[in-house]
Parts: sequence; C-alpha cells; structure tokens
Amino acid sequence: MRHDFASDNTAGLAPEALAALIAANAGAVSSYGSDAITARTADLIRERLQADAEVRFLISGTAANALALAMLARPFESVLAHEHAHIVTDETGAPGFFGQGLGLTRLAGAHARIDPEALKAALAEPEPAYVQPPGALSLTQATEYGALYSAEQLRHLIEPCKLKGLKVHMDGARLANAAAAGFDPADVARLGVDVLCFGGAKAGAGAVEALVIFDPKLARRVDHRIKQAGQTASKARLLTAPLMGLLESGAWEGHAAHANRMAQRLAAGIKARTPFPLAHPVEASLVFVRMPADAHDRLLASGWAASDFSDGSIRFVCSWATTAESVDEFVEALAKVA
Amino acid sequence: MRHDFASDNTAGLAPEALAALIAANAGAVSSYGSDAITARTADLIRERLQADAEVRFLISGTAANALALAMLARPFESVLAHEHAHIVTDETGAPGFFGQGLGLTRLAGAHARIDPEALKAALAEPEPAYVQPPGALSLTQATEYGALYSAEQLRHLIEPCKLKGLKVHMDGARLANAAAAGFDPADVARLGVDVLCFGGAKAGAGAVEALVIFDPKLARRVDHRIKQAGQTASKARLLTAPLMGLLESGAWEGHAAHANRMAQRLAAGIKARTPFPLAHPVEASLVFVRMPADAHDRLLASGWAASDFSDGSIRFVCSWATTAESVDEFVEALAKVA
Amino acid sequence: MRHDFASDNTAGLAPEALAALIAANAGAVSSYGSDAITARTADLIRERLQADAEVRFLISGTAANALALAMLARPFESVLAHEHAHIVTDETGAPGFFGQGLGLTRLAGAHARIDPEALKAALAEPEPAYVQPPGALSLTQATEYGALYSAEQLRHLIEPCKLKGLKVHMDGARLANAAAAGFDPADVARLGVDVLCFGGAKAGAGAVEALVIFDPKLARRVDHRIKQAGQTASKARLLTAPLMGLLESGAWEGHAAHANRMAQRLAAGIKARTPFPLAHPVEASLVFVRMPADAHDRLLASGWAASDFSDGSIRFVCSWATTAESVDEFVEALAKVA
Amino acid sequence: MRHDFASDNTAGLAPEALAALIAANAGAVSSYGSDAITARTADLIRERLQADAEVRFLISGTAANALALAMLARPFESVLAHEHAHIVTDETGAPGFFGQGLGLTRLAGAHARIDPEALKAALAEPEPAYVQPPGALSLTQATEYGALYSAEQLRHLIEPCKLKGLKVHMDGARLANAAAAGFDPADVARLGVDVLCFGGAKAGAGAVEALVIFDPKLARRVDHRIKQAGQTASKARLLTAPLMGLLESGAWEGHAAHANRMAQRLAAGIKARTPFPLAHPVEASLVFVRMPADAHDRLLASGWAASDFSDGSIRFVCSWATTAESVDEFVEALAKVA
Repeated sequence: MRHDFASDNTAGLAPEALAALIAANAGAVSSYGSDAITARTADLIRERLQADAEVRFLISGTAANALALAMLARPFESVLAHEHAHIVTDETGAPGFFGQGLGLTRLAGAHARIDPEALKAALAEPEPAYVQPPGALSLTQATEYGALYSAEQLRHLIEPCKLKGLKVHMDGARLANAAAAGFDPADVARLGVDVLCFGGAKAGAGAVEALVIFDPKLARRVDHRIKQAGQTASKARLLTAPLMGLLESGAWEGHAAHANRMAQRLAAGIKARTPFPLAHPVEASLVFVRMPADAHDRLLASGWAASDFSDGSIRFVCSWATTAESVDEFVEALAKVA
Repeated sequence: MRHDFASDNTAGLAPEALAALIAANAGAVSSYGSDAITARTADLIRERLQADAEVRFLISGTAANALALAMLARPFESVLAHEHAHIVTDETGAPGFFGQGLGLTRLAGAHARIDPEALKAALAEPEPAYVQPPGALSLTQATEYGALYSAEQLRHLIEPCKLKGLKVHMDGARLANAAAAGFDPADVARLGVDVLCFGGAKAGAGAVEALVIFDPKLARRVDHRIKQAGQTASKARLLTAPLMGLLESGAWEGHAAHANRMAQRLAAGIKARTPFPLAHPVEASLVFVRMPADAHDRLLASGWAASDFSDGSIRFVCSWATTAESVDEFVEALAKVA
Repeated sequence: MRHDFASDNTAGLAPEALAALIAANAGAVSSYGSDAITARTADLIRERLQADAEVRFLISGTAANALALAMLARPFESVLAHEHAHIVTDETGAPGFFGQGLGLTRLAGAHARIDPEALKAALAEPEPAYVQPPGALSLTQATEYGALYSAEQLRHLIEPCKLKGLKVHMDGARLANAAAAGFDPADVARLGVDVLCFGGAKAGAGAVEALVIFDPKLARRVDHRIKQAGQTASKARLLTAPLMGLLESGAWEGHAAHANRMAQRLAAGIKARTPFPLAHPVEASLVFVRMPADAHDRLLASGWAASDFSDGSIRFVCSWATTAESVDEFVEALAKVA
Repeated sequence: MRHDFASDNTAGLAPEALAALIAANAGAVSSYGSDAITARTADLIRERLQADAEVRFLISGTAANALALAMLARPFESVLAHEHAHIVTDETGAPGFFGQGLGLTRLAGAHARIDPEALKAALAEPEPAYVQPPGALSLTQATEYGALYSAEQLRHLIEPCKLKGLKVHMDGARLANAAAAGFDPADVARLGVDVLCFGGAKAGAGAVEALVIFDPKLARRVDHRIKQAGQTASKARLLTAPLMGLLESGAWEGHAAHANRMAQRLAAGIKARTPFPLAHPVEASLVFVRMPADAHDRLLASGWAASDFSDGSIRFVCSWATTAESVDEFVEALAKVA
C-alpha cells in the first residue's frame, strides 16, 4: 500500500529537520527542556508570531489540544467547536479526558469553518445548571477540510466569544499551510487567541507541537501541568531541534507552500482527468473529492491508501515530501479507477 | 554547566539508534503505529522478554507508568510503591491524573527495594470504605537508587500481592541496565508482572517507552486508551526506529553494560580519591554519594551539574555516552571539591 | 408561581415516607449504611426485583447514573443513549466527570425510546483508535417522554449489545411509574441489565436512589467507589427509611399508579378542553403538549410553572401529591390560555 | 451494639431539625434549590458568619470538601493539610477524584492542629516541575482530635499561605462545636478563608453541608459544578429545612454547646474513674483516650461501639443526643473494662 497521499504523517522528517536533529544529538545537554536548542526554538516561534508568549513543547497534537482546552474551560463547561473539528472527531474524546468531563458543543459550517450564525445561536442558549455552558471556543487554521479563515472571519467568531467571557483556542496543526497561503501568523495574538497549538509534525518535524500561551496568567505552573500529563520530553532537544531546523531555515513555511502547490496541482489534475467533484475548496494542502464507493475500493485495490472523512468525501494530503511526479502518477491512478 | 553525569537523559541518541532513525526516515509509510518498523520493534521486545504480549509505544515514561497503573488499579484503590519510586517522587502526581484520583501508598525499604515486611504490613491493613485499599503493586527494576532486585526477591513481593488479587506493574526505565547486570528479562513475564514499561530513552533511544501487556484482557481497546491519553505518535516510526536499532544490534544491552561498567569505575574512583561514602550499592548505572552541602556547591561551581535526591544523597548517572576519560576527569573534580 | 405540575420533585415526602423517617429518627444506630433500616430497604428492593443483587443507596440520581456508567464503560469508550436521555441533556455532563471523559453517543427514537435501527447502526460503526467505541448501553424506563418499553422492546435493544460485549445500564428514576403501568420489575434482571438505578425521589422519598448491581464482580469495592464519589450518607437511615416506608406499604407502586392515573386525567382534560396536541403517548406520569410560545407565556403569567423540553414540547408531571382537583383546575387554566 | 458514643452520625435529626422538615414537607415548591426555605437557610448562614458569600447546599461532607478543594487547587498542585485531617485519612482519596489527581501534602502538628513550622517548611520547598507544589491550605475547625484553633493560630497559618498565592479551605464539619467553644464564626471570613464547608449533619441536621464561597469569582457557574458532581438535591427543601430549623432556633450552637459539655463530663468521668489517659485536650465534643487493646476489646464485647483512630487512640463522640445519664453509664462501662 502506498501512503503518499494518505496523511501528512506518512512523510518523515524534512531534510532541514533531520539535519538539525543530527547536529543537536552530539554532547551532553540538560534535559526536560532546559537546553539552549529548546530555548532557541521558542524564540523562533515568538518571532514568527510577533508576540510575547510562553512557549512549551509537547509530544502529541492530541495532547496539546486537550491540555490547552483543559486550561481554558472547566469540567462543567463545554468547548464550542466545529462538528468536524479534529478535537471532536479524531481524538478519542481526549478533551474530556484531560478536561475531566469537559463537554464539546458541535457547530455547523461549510468546509469546517464555524458558521457565525451557528456560533451566535450557541452563545444565546440559556445556561441552566443542568447543561454545560460554553467556556471556550476552538478554531482550526487551516481547517480540517483544507479551508482558510480570513482574519476578518476569525474576528467575527472571536469577538462575540470574548464579550461573553469565553477563552479562545486555536488548533494550528496546519498553521504553516495557512501561513503559506497568506494568513499572517501575527494575527493569532492580535485577534485574541489565548492558546495556540503551533504545529510541528505536519510541517516536517517529528513528534512535537508547541503550546503557545499568550496570557501569562494561564501559564502559571504550566510546566507542572505538562509534566503531570506525561507530555514532558526528557531528551527535549531531540524534539525541538527538528522544529528549530525548519524555522531557522524558513522551511517551516517553505515546505508548506510546496505542499499547498502540490495540492493545487492535484486538484487541477482531478478536475482535468477525473469525474470526481472536489468536496471543498483547496486553500491549503488538503484535497477532498466525492467518489463512489466502488471507485474508492478500486483505488485501494490499486495500491494507494486514502480514507473517507466525516462528511463522506475522500481525503488526499500533500506534504513537504510530495513530488510533482507522484502527484501526476496519482492523478493517473485516480483517472483509471473513475 | 557540564551535564555528563546529571542524568541518563542528557545524552542524545546512541549511534545505532540514530542510524536506524536516519534509515527509517525515507519514504512514505502508514502512520500511528501501523508501520513495519513499529511491528518489528514489538517483535524484538517480545523476543527479548521471551513472552507473548501486546506491545505498544508511548512517548513518555511518566505517561507509560501512569497509564499502566490506570489499567491495573481503579480510582478508589491505591498502588503500593516504594516511597522513593519515580512514580511517587518525580512524576507530579501523574498516576492520580491518569488514574482519576488513584492513590499511592508509600512503602519503605533499603536502596529503593520494597521491604517485604513493609509490603506484608500494607497488605494486612484493614480496608474500610473510607480508605483506598491496594489495587496494584509497582516495582522498579533497576531501582531508583541503582540497586537490583533478584528474581527471588521479586517473587517474594509479587506472590503475596497476587494472592490478594492485586495486579503488578514494573517500571523498567532502566531494565536494560538490570539485564546487563544479570537480571533475565524473561523473568518479568515468568514472575507474573502484568504490565511492564520497557525503557527506551535511558537506553539510548529518544522519547519512547514500550508498554508491554502480558494479559490480553487488559489490552482490550488499549489503542483507544493510548490515543485518548495523547500518547499515540503520528509518525510512529521516528520513535520506534531508534529502539529497533538498539535491539537489533544488541546495543540495548551492550550500551547498558557499558554504562554499568562506567558506574563501577566512577564508584571505584570515588572510593579511592574522595572521602565521600557511597549511599547505595552500585549495581547498575547510578552512583549515589553522601556529600556535604558545601562540597556539592563547589561541585556545581566548578561546572558540573548533579542534583540531590529524596534521601539527601547526590546522584551521578552513567549512560551509553559516558567515556572512561570523562569518568576520570569527573573523579578528579570530585576529589578537588572534597 | 405554582409548581404542582412542573416536576416530580416539587412534591415532598409521601406520607408513608415521612412516617417511616420519623420512626427511624429515634435512637443511636450505626452510621454510613451499616444499620438495620438500610439493610431492610435493600432486602425489599431485591424482593421487588426478584433478584439477588448488591444494593447500595446514593443521594443523587445524577450521581447514581454517572457512577453506574463509570462502572460499566471506560474513559475511552462511549455510552449509547437516547439523544434526549436525562444523562445526555440534564446532568451537566456528569457521566464524563465521573467517567473521566467517557463519551455519550446519541441515538434517535420516538418518545425517547431508542430506535433499534439506530442502535444497530451505532453497533456497526467501525472502531478506529481515534473514536470512542461503545462500551455500554443506557436505557430509561419509563422514558423521559413518559413512554414505556415493553420487555420485548428491551430485549431487542439489550441482546445485540450483549453479543458485542457491551454492558447495560437502566435509569429507573421512574421505574415505579413503569411498574404501575404494567412493566414487571423482575424483567430488569431477566433481560440482562447489569446496573439499575432504582428511583426513590420521584416515587415519594427524599434524596435517595438505589444502585442495584446484578453482577457481583462489578460490586467489588463498590463501597469505596461510592465513598470516594461523595455519595455515602453518614446518617444513612434518614435516606433509606423513607424508601423503606414506601416499599413496605406498597406505596412505591401505589403512588405511582395514582400519578399515572392523574396523568391520564390531565391528558383527557387537555384533549377535551384545549387545542393543544399531545406530543407523546401518555403511558406513565408525564404529559407533553405542543403549545404555541405565547400560550406558554400566558400559562406562566397565570401563575403555573412548566418548562419546555428538548423536543420543544411543554412537560407536565403528576406525582403522588397530585389531586384530581388540581388536575381539573390546571385543565381550566390551560383552556384559558389556549 | 450501642452506638451512642461511636460517632456524631449515629444520632438522628435533632428535634428542631425534624420539626422544620415536617413543616417544610407540605405543598409543592420549586426544586433544585430555588425554593424559599433554601434561600432562607443561606441567609441565616451569612448572618451567622457576618459575611456576604455565595452559599450552596451539598449532600455530603466528603463531596463538599473535595469539591471545595477542586475549586481552590489544580490537578498538578497539592493541598497542604494535617496528616490526620479527615480529607487525608477518611475520604477514600475524594480530593484526588474530584480534583483530577490533586495531591495531598501531609503536615504534622499536635492534636491535628497544623504546626506552623511544618507549614513553613512545606512552603519553602523547591517546586521543580516533577512535584505537585502547594496550591491550597486546608484547615479543620474544630480539629479531628477535638482541639480548637484560636483566631491567632489560624492567622499564623493563613497569612504565609496567602502571601504565596495559596487559597484556603476550612472543613467546618464541627464548626458549631468550635463556635460553642468560643470561636467566632465571623473570623472565618475575616481571616481570609476562601471556601468554608459549614457543617450540618454533625450539628443535628441530615445529609447537608453548606458550601460557603467568600470570593465571588470562585462562585462563577458553581451551580453547574455542583450539579455535574452529583451534589444537587432535587427536593432541596428536605435537606435545607432541618438546617434552617437549627439555625433559626439557635439550636445549631445550642446543641453543640450541649455536646461540648457532655464531652467535658465524659472526660472528667474518665479521669476520675479509669486509668485511661486522655490523648488530646477536650475542647469540643470529642474525647480520645489511650486504652490497651484488650480493654478496647472488652469494651466492644460489653456492647459499646468505639473505634481507634490514626494515632492509635480510641475516640468517643458526644452529640446533641447525648444525655448525662448515658455519659455516666458509659463511664461505668469504661471503668469496668479497665
């Protein structure tokens, strides 16, 4: 089975990440994140976000999101999120585990962007003691269906939440792709996001996501929180060096831009060569098509992995490792199973 | 500050681990642990333990221990553990977090080996509804003070627990050092341990510990459990390849044997050249000395990191990366601050 | 505001319950549930259910349900329940709190009876590690919309779950009403329910619900579990005596039969005197009507409390304390606001 | 077995409590705490404490304490408490369950009063990320060994905690006895306690404890918190009316004063008629004696219940129901078994 387009996690470390890891591996340095490489990586992220913030490194995106939500909302509250958000559909209820029963309120919206009207309705719901009222809003940039929020769209979602005292989380697992597509990472802080999960793995690093905490009060004893949750890497430099390598070299965005271009090439090929309609606009690195079940079966039978998503469409993903040749080859394979 | 002897986590990936990582990095493979490298690593662990078992890979030793304990005991029960066990003193209460309030009952014993009499007394305690009765026993091999349990000693601890229906966990963060010192890893299953945390990081890998589940009933839906707890690596091969490299090459034990020899050399040097008494027998890779506070201060001032432990002694650790030269240099430094 | 028809909890202790409480109050007896009155109440419940079972007394229906679910499913699993079940809509996410993130999977079905096809579909869902697969089924008898399950209907829901290894919970907050309407409580055990919450408060007692555990293995250390969850009454007799009084006198069912009759009278009056259609069949003590918002407003303005439910209908409840006169008076009030 | 002196929970409702319950039982009132009796009870508590505060009613002292601690400290923090505090020794780890792993740090001190030096040492401990640093202090007034803190003693414990940002909890299960012995309840707020558990059950009510929250920020959405934790009484008036009856009549303190006097009489009898030394000063309603095991056995054999405590002494408790005759009879029994 070929996994080229199955996920952003089927690719390994990008060359800049691997080189930085190899370089960082030498010698003895202090452990548990008190090393210079980890400090430098945090600096690079603050620079990239143009914001002062506490930055920590976790070893799982699921944990980063869930821990962030547990910081922002309490067990008897809920998090407003898109009904197809990764935290809702793909994390085995981790927000409830880390958040001790924290609820999730599912909101509708095209292309996994939360519909402002759906949000408004949720915020207007009465809050008797027997329901979990909203404590936080979770946004994903780029969205799980490969769409982008504009800064203006984010503002329209964030502002009414802030007015009601909600905190705001952003899942930035594909923030690099959003940045490469024109979203300014400096807007994250400007718009009032409280905690950002700054993606590493999908951008070409290994098991690392940065937790970026803009409100210093929230960061009190965050190292204790992270340690208790089993998210403190002992040999931290091995996690952070690859991300440092990507950020220092500009490859964090450069690779994402490449992945976005490959997604455009794939979408164009699909339009030109297959009858399969695109299910969502292709604004980042993800391509979704509507494909009959038998065509999907033939695709799998022909040796390419690809799975269906919450809305029934089939997802293909481009990454730093995707080549134009493999895109063209894959388009041929899709054309054949049509 | 030189971190050579401060921890086993101040060294990077051992050469065999790094080489395997570089080799594994190429190409696209399936994610979340369904790849061939991860499968091969699990096979190698089963071979090494001479036991059939479910093997999974987690990205933190703290999480591996805490998750294992949450599998073995319930929130209203407690885990019997040595009062200086890592789970008691160094994991920010992670067993209570993963185990929803699961208690820890602290037992005494020399060199962090649980005293069988202390265990017996704990098992004989009445169990009214207002206390957390013991649900599991946790053992560490090698112990946190660098001592070894013999198989016979383990049997005397495990048997009375099994008779009372308790489950048994083993923290094997330094199992490689124990194996290199003569403990047969096949005894883990033979003696009735239910879940073993098989150490990777301290043995020369990166952020990886294997959860080894001997009782298949306990393994039901364990992948869901691990995912929910934020311990599933997306690019799993990057975690498991280094451990595979160590196991395939024999370096998992080879490096541990080296570390143990370096600890002996260090202990011998300390005895010969300093007035500092050893606080614990040196049976694995750890050396503990009793050192006046001012001598410790001078050691730090001279540029070597080393911290004091629960019993007030100062710990020095040898790893795969420790050289005879650095040991000798460190002995000189110790002699100077005496 | 008159609360006569607003809830079953607006009535106090039924006379038999109060008399038993007053009688039980005298003298010093052992605390925390080891007294003779508590033992006798448990015996009466076992008799009523014609089953051997462990019986414990909790002080909240929400806690009884949530604790039962935490016994039956694990944090990374979900509970299949009707989308309008009390545990889903009215308990502030308590199952997730007691169950450490335990999920709820909402199933459709008319009148809050789970549709067997919806259940079948849920059981047939794939179970990748990133979702919470079903660990238990929760049923409510009588349902939240005042309907009854027949034994045959229950069997068709329970059997496929048991075949897949799921456990079964029954919320019997209104089991007395179901029993009075013809459901045989002995069927609860016969059909394979694992844990039943046997209702006390709505039947005329105070803050007491019985946790009935049919599988002795599940009951291991249940007293510890209950105590840790803050559900052990110190002066237990004050909780159990009222329930004992109801069960010994036959009033547990007798009052429920009265409440059911009053609901029939109310439904008949509504049909005869108002234009409001009944939203659900009246099979127990609950009456739901579809009522325009302005009529509901006028009803509140005229001094009667009554609130809308998940499906938009307005709920009226009869209890042991409801009189024929108050029903007739209420029908007049409804006729006036029409 | 006679339970007269075994616990404060072996007595039923005091006459004033029962009378108020009977009076409150009539008629239909709104449920879940929105009734006038519950509001009146809260007013009476605010008056008694001479403080503005949010007051809620829970149905278990264990839950009241654990929920309060979960409000005041986070899972990766610990609560400083006396090593023999009820929350430490008698609540099955409930603080860890409600507090998601929240730790307990045990402090020494005579008569279950925390030693200020022990507190000082705990506050001076380093706080590396791998330990649970203190987030709150828990005090019990009167203490578990029947001693009183003076306002001055409390101040010396509370002030250094406040300076370090810790929150303060008071377990007032026997606050009535402390008040009757001269402690001014108005000092609770004055001294800076953040949350008080105001005892009902031991004072002569049933299953009811008031949660008194002095900081309004902490009270945000507290009704949701209480409901989720299964501590909201549906028929709330049945819980609050007895406490209202005690407070309105002055019996809350009057009965406590009686219990304290009975404890003095018992202590005097023991001193005069038995060789058993008192283990703790008798300042409230508890009497502790040192008694050989065989004498304790003979006491039980002679038909009187009484159990040993954490420090090995035997506890006898007086309550509103204790009569001078029963004290004298009990002294005789003690004299006989000596």
